[in-house]
Amino acid sequence: MARYCFCLQVKPERMTEYAQRHRAVWPEMRQALTDTGWRNYSLFLRDDGLLIGYVEADDLEAAQAAMARTEVNARWQAEMAGFFTGLDGRGPDEGFQLLTEVFHLEGK
Amino acid sequence: MARYCFCLQVKPERMTEYAQRHRAVWPEMRQALTDTGWRNYSLFLRDDGLLIGYVEADDLEAAQAAMARTEVNARWQAEMAGFFTGLDGRGPDEGFQLLTEVFHLEGK
Repeated sequence: MARYCFCLQVKPERMTEYAQRHRAVWPEMRQALTDTGWRNYSLFLRDDGLLIGYVEADDLEAAQAAMARTEVNARWQAEMAGFFTGLDGRGPDEGFQLLTEVFHLEGK
Repeated sequence: MARYCFCLQVKPERMTEYAQRHRAVWPEMRQALTDTGWRNYSLFLRDDGLLIGYVEADDLEAAQAAMARTEVNARWQAEMAGFFTGLDGRGPDEGFQLLTEVFHLEGK
């Protein structure tokens, strides 16, 4: 299992709506994420629209590719694309920037 | 248990050294974090110095307060302070900005 962190930029004027939409993610979208190996997946929003994703997976690239093959993902990403800046024509699921893990503590 | 995400800004010219230091966090610092309830704690660095922390805890405010009472934390934070910008005189453990969780999927 590995841990991943990525970021995207939400348009500040659409942050409230973005948060609302994520309180009601379609059950079939949640199911597809679960089925394709996305675990302990959270999204966090900063007050300037910086969006941080944290997810655990055996292999994020494989989990992304499996998600990209689902029909529900195409529908969801098409609805989400307008919330972001800086995607340069890619979907939000393709245009995100991965960060580098520099420290980890398991704890107890 | 709750999940928390915070950010800080590392000076771009000190990113390499910051990452090196975090490959060798003092064992007594790791132990103090564990003892005070920091769990599944990771730090991620973006190539412009944006530092993202993800941590799980029963209560982060209590975990921060407990950490602040340890002697090792004062020594560690004093050594780390110079790596950051925008702290306005606070320690890195006091000056970080918490983000808002807008989505969570447990997965399987």
